[in-house]
Amino acid sequence: MRLPGGFAWGAVRAGIKASGNLDLAVALATGRDAVGACAVGAAMFTSNRVAAAPVTVGRRHLLATGGRVGAVLVNAGNANCATGAAGVAGCVATCVAAAETFGCIFDEVVPSSTGIIGVPFPAEKVVGAMAELQAAVGDTAEHAEGFARAIMTTDTRVKVASAAIRVGGGEVLIWGAAKGAGMIHPRLGAPVAPAAAHATMLVYLFTDVAAGVGELSAALAAAVEGSFNSISIDGDTSTNDTVLLLASGASGVRLTRELVGAFDGALGEVCGSLARQIVADGEGVRHVVTLEVRGAASVGDARLVAEAIARSSLCKTAWSSADPNWGRLLAAAGYSGAVFQTERVRIWIGAEAVFVDGMRAAGFDEAAAHAAMMEPEYTIAIDLGEGDGSCTFLTCDLTAEYVRINADYSS
Amino acid sequence: MRLPGGFAWGAVRAGIKASGNLDLAVALATGRDAVGACAVGAAMFTSNRVAAAPVTVGRRHLLATGGRVGAVLVNAGNANCATGAAGVAGCVATCVAAAETFGCIFDEVVPSSTGIIGVPFPAEKVVGAMAELQAAVGDTAEHAEGFARAIMTTDTRVKVASAAIRVGGGEVLIWGAAKGAGMIHPRLGAPVAPAAAHATMLVYLFTDVAAGVGELSAALAAAVEGSFNSISIDGDTSTNDTVLLLASGASGVRLTRELVGAFDGALGEVCGSLARQIVADGEGVRHVVTLEVRGAASVGDARLVAEAIARSSLCKTAWSSADPNWGRLLAAAGYSGAVFQTERVRIWIGAEAVFVDGMRAAGFDEAAAHAAMMEPEYTIAIDLGEGDGSCTFLTCDLTAEYVRINADYSS
Repeated sequence: MRLPGGFAWGAVRAGIKASGNLDLAVALATGRDAVGACAVGAAMFTSNRVAAAPVTVGRRHLLATGGRVGAVLVNAGNANCATGAAGVAGCVATCVAAAETFGCIFDEVVPSSTGIIGVPFPAEKVVGAMAELQAAVGDTAEHAEGFARAIMTTDTRVKVASAAIRVGGGEVLIWGAAKGAGMIHPRLGAPVAPAAAHATMLVYLFTDVAAGVGELSAALAAAVEGSFNSISIDGDTSTNDTVLLLASGASGVRLTRELVGAFDGALGEVCGSLARQIVADGEGVRHVVTLEVRGAASVGDARLVAEAIARSSLCKTAWSSADPNWGRLLAAAGYSGAVFQTERVRIWIGAEAVFVDGMRAAGFDEAAAHAAMMEPEYTIAIDLGEGDGSCTFLTCDLTAEYVRINADYSS
Repeated sequence: MRLPGGFAWGAVRAGIKASGNLDLAVALATGRDAVGACAVGAAMFTSNRVAAAPVTVGRRHLLATGGRVGAVLVNAGNANCATGAAGVAGCVATCVAAAETFGCIFDEVVPSSTGIIGVPFPAEKVVGAMAELQAAVGDTAEHAEGFARAIMTTDTRVKVASAAIRVGGGEVLIWGAAKGAGMIHPRLGAPVAPAAAHATMLVYLFTDVAAGVGELSAALAAAVEGSFNSISIDGDTSTNDTVLLLASGASGVRLTRELVGAFDGALGEVCGSLARQIVADGEGVRHVVTLEVRGAASVGDARLVAEAIARSSLCKTAWSSADPNWGRLLAAAGYSGAVFQTERVRIWIGAEAVFVDGMRAAGFDEAAAHAAMMEPEYTIAIDLGEGDGSCTFLTCDLTAEYVRINADYSS
């Protein structure tokens, strides 16, 4: 996996995770402009009205600098959400320490946190680990993977993806790292929207293209809509969801009008891969289900149907046992708020038509549908028979293991 | 338990449930007016856009007769939903058979079904059992309980409730029977709204008051709003939810203006009791949680918060292990769509304040909160600090047992 130039990564154990695993990471811009080391950053944050301290501070910093980013500081194990004024003060203290350590100005540090909500944020552990973090920084694949590993919470695997775009004599690289694996139903908006923090989706995308904030923001919004904003694990939108795209310019290639199509395509690919990895590694997940909703009166209606099914406990528990109980799909569509006539709806599980003409498909082969659902990944298609609205949405089953993971508590 | 006069009940085994248990029930109006035996009926049906055949037929019959009801015919084990024209024809055939058997006209039969969606409806089994059903009819407590038992699906207990209103020298009685226990998130509307059929909520209320359809409809709408429309087990709104209130007039007491308050109170009590019984007997439920949301900008906002929490897999799994993870409550409120400022919100679990002034309550006692959550029933209160909007909503935990019940499949 080749990494874009102009960045370095580091990760250490700061003692925030009870497990003692890597829990503090930094990504640095190493390229220099007239002012100092920086990259250009575009971000999208959760639309949850409850905002974690790092989301509040990160929005403020990106607005203040107009998108100059010197360092990204991420901890896992504590979300620094619902921690009041002390949480914000703690977050600011870690940004100050990172700015001093890594030689950028305070506002150029973008902070992120993920973990439990409401537990006082141990800023002193982050500040205390800063020298060690500095010593751990480098630009090799190992360093990048360390970054990707340190941001994990209930994730079982590191999630990374990359793409390359050849252009004239040059090349642009994109590399991204993400974490899930619960409280995943992202609804990301622009950085000025209300904010949110918990086991959260965090995504960091690095590219060596040369671009302005406006260009990056447009590319990011388009890529996020079809990827992170089109997945759900458990239906809960986190208070800390953050997607950050940083461009170093180190390739020397400008994001010109000619390049936009290829760049958007490559960014979409990286985001799509990371989004799929997040769902596949969701808490307790055994089946990844792609919902293809089409024939809706509008894209909005298609999304209503997809999201209702993706949140339906009855649909998701049926998937966990490969039960082709398509009545539950139809019922969820029925209460989604989308407009349709039942007798016009058609439903397929994999290649099997299961519902046609208002009733069970004539050739319904339950064993075949069950077999399709035994696969780790399959598609459910729903045609509402109303119009041209469509969407693709990625979700998963609800297993007893999910309940165990999230009910794990002893006091 | 005293039963209102003017009704009789019967139940038999028609071979629809695989278990061989009671699965076909009838409730009859035995009082007579100038035309024949009938009661006055008011109904509310699911707002799910997908309508079961009996919901479609039931709406049509109530509109046709203006609320005259001679018989209520209920089967469990098959929802007769998503069964196309054959499903409607089958439903009609059972109404015809019931009308012939019980001496009323076809339109005076209100049908209901509950069970699996999409499996062809075995009308012949219902029709074939009609003579036996007639022989089983009577007006004793045992007959009424047989009715309540035959309509059960995944319910583990019979659910009945009753109330009495003394008035002058007379007395009005109300008795009701209900079933759950999955696909329970009722959103009931007037009978002319779009319709819905699956494991469903069915509620039948019988009273001997003398009243017109308009009076009964108004009383029912008020009682349903604070009871069945304010509960959720799994967040899935069924395609067959039906609440039917029948008044026989057998008490000789008119539902006058003076009586309305007392009658509404008694009906609300019966509906409240049945709603609580439904949640308490929900699939896999170990804890019943009352959500008290107050201080919202509007009643609508209060309901948004309550429904988001009642649907949140993360909140509900935490409840299953009595984990006082209040951050999940706050996060769900945050994405609910309700308007509020995090720092004004206050949250209590039982009597324990857990979130105040934007952070964990100063005196937060985790052990006490955990202890409160070990009780089979407890209250979570949330004050949004915005206005006067409030609501009370009843819901439950999400357990591994729920997943097992709904993932149970072998092919």
